[in-house]
Amino acid sequence: MVDGGMSRVQPRVLKGFRDYLPDVMTKRESMLRRVADVFNSFGFAPIATPALEYSEILLGKYGTEGDKLLYRFADNGERDVSLRYDLTVPLARVMGQHTELSKPFRRYQIAPVWRAEKPGRGRFREFVQCDVDIVGSDNLLADFECVQVGVAVLKALGVSDFTMQINDRRILDGLMERLGISGASQKMEVLRSTDKLPKIGWDGVVKELQGKLELSDTQLAALHTFMHGTLDDIDASVADMDIAGPGIECLNTLLGWAEELGIREHLAIDLSIARGLDYYTSTIYETFLGALPGFGSVMSGGRYDDLLSMFSKKSMPAVGISLGVDRLLAGLIELELAGDGGAAAQVFVLGFEDATAGAAQRVAAALRADGLSAQLHLKPGQNMGKQFKAAGKSGAAVVVVLGADEIASGEATIKHLASREQVRVPQADAAAAVRKLLG
Amino acid sequence: MVDGGMSRVQPRVLKGFRDYLPDVMTKRESMLRRVADVFNSFGFAPIATPALEYSEILLGKYGTEGDKLLYRFADNGERDVSLRYDLTVPLARVMGQHTELSKPFRRYQIAPVWRAEKPGRGRFREFVQCDVDIVGSDNLLADFECVQVGVAVLKALGVSDFTMQINDRRILDGLMERLGISGASQKMEVLRSTDKLPKIGWDGVVKELQGKLELSDTQLAALHTFMHGTLDDIDASVADMDIAGPGIECLNTLLGWAEELGIREHLAIDLSIARGLDYYTSTIYETFLGALPGFGSVMSGGRYDDLLSMFSKKSMPAVGISLGVDRLLAGLIELELAGDGGAAAQVFVLGFEDATAGAAQRVAAALRADGLSAQLHLKPGQNMGKQFKAAGKSGAAVVVVLGADEIASGEATIKHLASREQVRVPQADAAAAVRKLLG
Repeated sequence: MVDGGMSRVQPRVLKGFRDYLPDVMTKRESMLRRVADVFNSFGFAPIATPALEYSEILLGKYGTEGDKLLYRFADNGERDVSLRYDLTVPLARVMGQHTELSKPFRRYQIAPVWRAEKPGRGRFREFVQCDVDIVGSDNLLADFECVQVGVAVLKALGVSDFTMQINDRRILDGLMERLGISGASQKMEVLRSTDKLPKIGWDGVVKELQGKLELSDTQLAALHTFMHGTLDDIDASVADMDIAGPGIECLNTLLGWAEELGIREHLAIDLSIARGLDYYTSTIYETFLGALPGFGSVMSGGRYDDLLSMFSKKSMPAVGISLGVDRLLAGLIELELAGDGGAAAQVFVLGFEDATAGAAQRVAAALRADGLSAQLHLKPGQNMGKQFKAAGKSGAAVVVVLGADEIASGEATIKHLASREQVRVPQADAAAAVRKLLG
Repeated sequence: MVDGGMSRVQPRVLKGFRDYLPDVMTKRESMLRRVADVFNSFGFAPIATPALEYSEILLGKYGTEGDKLLYRFADNGERDVSLRYDLTVPLARVMGQHTELSKPFRRYQIAPVWRAEKPGRGRFREFVQCDVDIVGSDNLLADFECVQVGVAVLKALGVSDFTMQINDRRILDGLMERLGISGASQKMEVLRSTDKLPKIGWDGVVKELQGKLELSDTQLAALHTFMHGTLDDIDASVADMDIAGPGIECLNTLLGWAEELGIREHLAIDLSIARGLDYYTSTIYETFLGALPGFGSVMSGGRYDDLLSMFSKKSMPAVGISLGVDRLLAGLIELELAGDGGAAAQVFVLGFEDATAGAAQRVAAALRADGLSAQLHLKPGQNMGKQFKAAGKSGAAVVVVLGADEIASGEATIKHLASREQVRVPQADAAAAVRKLLG
């Protein structure tokens, strides 16, 4: 209820947040539907978890830096609560709490997460994550299923020119060991830096590494050769190692399966892919759009066999892939694959006097019953020019006109706005005529 | 990243909140998709607003009681912020901020809201609202469009036995005036109490009213007659009044249009419908399922011509309808109209040895390409009995079996689990055979 006497507050969106208005939102909804259809076709099922969790569930899971970025507060019952920071820790909580869920558990979740980061160009404090994971299987078939899902998603979105770059953490671990880079934090430093290779180039990587670790020229040279090498190149250097060998074998198996399924062209082994997060245990992948190479990865993921057992006594091997919803949408818009988005409805129905309102409603209802979307003009008294202007502004492709003339003859005039093609048909045939004009 | 050394935290969902696991979530998603399809068919477009707003945007809009129920806190930049309490005030903020949006503006928003209420049976502190509104038109056509949307939504969900009960606030205002009940707060007390008529009965209403206002027996008797009356009954008492007359005329026009569109059977004038919120200005409606009369209203709304202008200098007439997502879903489940929900995929694909993995993947991919959903068993080494058990547990209707035999002959065995009917076909014909067994 509105306090009529209150002073007027300036309408503004919270700093670091944004509204999605119909133009973008229509495209996002259409994209996410097609994405969910792909997930469903593989037998993944949706779940939803609360926006708020007890803080103790989230704290310590994202590093000291992450803890600081939590939206954390005391609720009205003095509970220490936080807005979720990602969808992975809530999944771990669900797996630990709902032990009745049968495994392998294939789930997806599409939901906003909140991080109190410094806002920047294209970076917001609330953004939608889209995660698909298989929990409870350590079989490589599960890894390949995630790769397949990634390929199927982009194909379903109409993208044909893209590459999933695949690597295996164990190969990188073998390399580190061979180079004499030991200690978990030292290894992660190297991985985090080399992971930026596409962004900052080899010189940038070297500069970063020299600031943090003391690597010899021989070590750096070996790293360089390795990062730019192929699976065949590295066979000699690390393939015989207990640690790297299984990684190489897995990548070869994945490539073989991809060949069998006719999606080999979309996969590439890239030994420089590291993923900056330390929880991955074997396969890792990132996905780049061929036409937009500077765009960064639109889908990434990998296997993380230890992460999900944080709330469980049982082992919880898992593999998943996560879509960068905003980046992918921006890419689709850039590639003109995001659909119209502008038009709320395909057809705009006009009537020129109050008396035509009934007929206009009837025709609009018939169009909808036929599966078309039809929007009614809500000012039947308005003059014809203004009504046509409103129709144009709505983005509708076709206008249905019901004037006094048409009402008298039981007909409707149907006009395609772009081509200006126009027909007059009995009202009962309106849907067919609209479909014909839509082509 | 996980701190391996941390003490184990008990996995539990926050008090007053809940997880949606696949069984219910699949049904909810399916329902909301069909609902959104109906909205889109009328030319409504989706928007999304942030979960967090500046507190000043929300405060004072929901009464003193509502202010106390806000999840309000200081963010990391010491901004006074709150989680949204409904979707209406954010819409008002959007309309005030994005003045470029052309009107009439038809939008829907499906999103969670948060209220720190005492949790109870079926009452949670986070729940999804689904609002559809037309902003910027005071034409009765817009009111009728909302009624049509409501009817179309329930029909699209497979519900045929339902009634939208319609009233007009102005008729109630006229009645109050005639009864000598004046003053805004006194009127609202009466409306709030009579609104509970279906729940607490007439005796309950009288008891409530006597505790708050001093009404004479004559006033109560007139109220009773009126609330149980028809449009025709009241003509004599209030129709001649400036205030009630237009309301009666509107209801009659709505009924006429409904007759023309063949949805008259789903509408009923009910003069006892009041809606407990004080911002409605004319038409109001609630919707009840015929088969579940005790369930309460599953969709309600009305016209509120002053509310949205709180952030705007311009007049912002609006009319809308809001779906009770959880109640409607519970109703659909009760009526067995919510779909399966149990099965993640229609088909479960088995292979009996590691060597069959490639063929199993290929057949699963072919089924998906044909529009079916197919889930792969991820333990090809497992024995046949366990694999069939996993298939049964998944809820899939059909199992595709690829054993050594089948691989040798390039065939697949396809079995309908319920009927135990089984066929063996070339792998290339698997999709057709599955469709035939699915019937």
